[in-house]
Amino acid sequence: MPRFRFVDAVHAYKCTDTRAGPFYSGTTMIDVPQAAQAAVLTIGDEVTTGRIVDTNAAWLSAWLSDLGFFVSERRSVVDEITAIAEAMRALAARVPLLLVTGGLGPTQDDLTAAALAEAACKPLARHPEAARQVEQAFARRGVVMPAINYKQADLPLGAVPIANPVGTAPAFRQTLTGCDVFCLPGVPREMRAIVEGPLLDTLRDRAPAAPEVYRLRLLGVSESLAAEKLAPYLDNLSRRGVRCAFRATHPEVEVSFRGPIGSIDAAKREELRALFGSGCYGTGDLALPARVSAALRQKTWTLATAESCTGGWLAKLLTEEAGASAFLVGGVVTYTNLLKTRMLDVPETLLANEGPVSEACARAMAEGARKRLGADLALATTGIAGPDGGTATTPVGLVYIALATPYGTTSEQLSLRGERSHIRLRAAWHALRLLLSQLEANRLDAVQETQQVR
Amino acid sequence: MPRFRFVDAVHAYKCTDTRAGPFYSGTTMIDVPQAAQAAVLTIGDEVTTGRIVDTNAAWLSAWLSDLGFFVSERRSVVDEITAIAEAMRALAARVPLLLVTGGLGPTQDDLTAAALAEAACKPLARHPEAARQVEQAFARRGVVMPAINYKQADLPLGAVPIANPVGTAPAFRQTLTGCDVFCLPGVPREMRAIVEGPLLDTLRDRAPAAPEVYRLRLLGVSESLAAEKLAPYLDNLSRRGVRCAFRATHPEVEVSFRGPIGSIDAAKREELRALFGSGCYGTGDLALPARVSAALRQKTWTLATAESCTGGWLAKLLTEEAGASAFLVGGVVTYTNLLKTRMLDVPETLLANEGPVSEACARAMAEGARKRLGADLALATTGIAGPDGGTATTPVGLVYIALATPYGTTSEQLSLRGERSHIRLRAAWHALRLLLSQLEANRLDAVQETQQVR
Repeated sequence: MPRFRFVDAVHAYKCTDTRAGPFYSGTTMIDVPQAAQAAVLTIGDEVTTGRIVDTNAAWLSAWLSDLGFFVSERRSVVDEITAIAEAMRALAARVPLLLVTGGLGPTQDDLTAAALAEAACKPLARHPEAARQVEQAFARRGVVMPAINYKQADLPLGAVPIANPVGTAPAFRQTLTGCDVFCLPGVPREMRAIVEGPLLDTLRDRAPAAPEVYRLRLLGVSESLAAEKLAPYLDNLSRRGVRCAFRATHPEVEVSFRGPIGSIDAAKREELRALFGSGCYGTGDLALPARVSAALRQKTWTLATAESCTGGWLAKLLTEEAGASAFLVGGVVTYTNLLKTRMLDVPETLLANEGPVSEACARAMAEGARKRLGADLALATTGIAGPDGGTATTPVGLVYIALATPYGTTSEQLSLRGERSHIRLRAAWHALRLLLSQLEANRLDAVQETQQVR
Repeated sequence: MPRFRFVDAVHAYKCTDTRAGPFYSGTTMIDVPQAAQAAVLTIGDEVTTGRIVDTNAAWLSAWLSDLGFFVSERRSVVDEITAIAEAMRALAARVPLLLVTGGLGPTQDDLTAAALAEAACKPLARHPEAARQVEQAFARRGVVMPAINYKQADLPLGAVPIANPVGTAPAFRQTLTGCDVFCLPGVPREMRAIVEGPLLDTLRDRAPAAPEVYRLRLLGVSESLAAEKLAPYLDNLSRRGVRCAFRATHPEVEVSFRGPIGSIDAAKREELRALFGSGCYGTGDLALPARVSAALRQKTWTLATAESCTGGWLAKLLTEEAGASAFLVGGVVTYTNLLKTRMLDVPETLLANEGPVSEACARAMAEGARKRLGADLALATTGIAGPDGGTATTPVGLVYIALATPYGTTSEQLSLRGERSHIRLRAAWHALRLLLSQLEANRLDAVQETQQVR
């Protein structure tokens, strides 16, 4: 039985941080049962030439991992029949489950079915059920079906078609040297619809028990710092069969603990969370913008934004989900001092004395937005996003955020690192984090009751 | 000599569009010299489990393609010494150039050097020059070097270290069965610094002649439509050795023609461009937001934004590059009718009669923003981004954009397809496209002269 090294916090840390760390705590060697192993093969010149980033492969790998499979290898090959067939044979010889994407289209450079037929030494034959599925896909859209599309129903003999609910190419399943090979379309939307529907139904029973997951969502904490803080806990967790892994999805870092989470009691979970203080904005699956939006709706507060360095990004985050008009009245981007005064009533003297990048300015912007836009709450950002424009007193990355409420105004000074886009996105997220912490602490609720008559 | 199918327009089209098309025009089979072939191997559980999207592989593939190499295969393997060594051997047997990323860190699960040593049947030995490079990396940051980091200088015997200008892990080069293997760090910033510096210097001489590129940048034209329009030209271009490829980087589609572009005269290039009319916003490397920003600076016009359905995204695009304050005074996001009236002077009667999603409202928003924010020009968006909120008269995807200038106001009605985020981003880009077309047509210049005294 092959042994694979599972990832722990330290491992993930090393991949994205340049600091070589003293935090190393050892990795866990565990046995992966053969039946839990899987591989992913993506097909297409557009992948191998780097014209597109292979998000399908990452998505499939994450999906398999969530089901408890262990993806031991991924390959991408060009649209070339021998190369595809060879990769299929090599992967099928090693793992019992192989997911293939791409190459199911109607044109002559869509070669997946032909390559699998070659690999499995089967003839390619028109599959009546698959042909019917292609016909139906065209009928659904009321489009005349070109004859060329019948090619999408030419499958290796013995393959079982899987209906594609959103496109014309049926997926199919074929056994190759004992490995279950599933060929999926390369169009991400089609692939995901098939994977989350019929493929999930097929694999559910044989999937290794999907581990429970406990997630900490961190903002303003680097992976290396998180690894350092968690290092003393990893051996113990690992002995209980709980693996710790990191995912950095800029600007947040997600720490997941997978395994028999039930064996970690609530106090221990809270202890892990408390390691990060206000750096942990929550646990579970929902990311910060969705949490803010849910909390605002639940409390029926309205919000306005006043942005300088984030330049509209904060409003954009708040309007990403439909229904934002339930809480967001609007926002202002003020890139000049004149507009800060004209649209947000920031006093000229304040701008002259404190400057536009100051805590006082952030507070005045939030208060001005709350009043001028007529919202219960207002969030403001001002800072130096760089790369130019920094000085000794206002360096690049210095950002002030403020939240104005009927109860009063809260503000924070941030020192953010990274490129311009990182600083801007982080500033917007920190503003959301400030708002969420106030909403969740219920600090504003008592006030709201007294203000109900407004 | 292996034959590979190069990508043409039709090929790229099939990968991202669900329509099975009658546009197929055949692909070109050409011989790729052995010396021009390359492969990419990325190492790490974080890649195979899908916790991160493998942008390194895409970036390296694109970089190699730009140099004229043909990447015939990519693989990703877990941090497991046998799996890495086996992949190295398999790829090295096929291509003369192999780029490997990841696994150069100091911890025991960083196994790239050990795996290459195994693959090449060489002992692993501390390389004095590499050790000096690691020491220097720590000295540069004034950090005490942990002993564990000397592991980063343990290379297969015969390997040549390549200094890492931004991190601690030296890259290195080793010959494996006649293939030049370059092992690079997995941290993207470090990898790119080495690739664009010392690696480029090394490969420049042996790189196949990088083909010239002529690029059309399309907005509002699907890949399938572009493929259909270009189909009649592809055979002729292909005979001249010019390959046509697509890259869809939402929301635009980039069509690139690579090869002896000089053989296509200016009239022919213009003919290709004219196929797309106003759907082609430009040629060359610069994307739309950067073009708008350059044109505004050059003409010293100031701009304001007034956004409804784009919710801040337009302002965010305009402030992505440093120095946006040279032209952007600010913007307003008005999510309610009340704010449209209060902040942009949109007449209440207009909102009552025409509704907030109307051409009249977009025009009034732009004119109001221009006046209230005191800019030369103002761009406005209003529409239904969905997925809910559509009606028979204002369906999801209906968007109006307007540009107010001292000369008058221009507006357009758009019918955009896709998810909420697609509609929002496309709406913002179309607003930029409208602005750019007016700036480039010099329609505003005459007016500006008469307004110089303002």
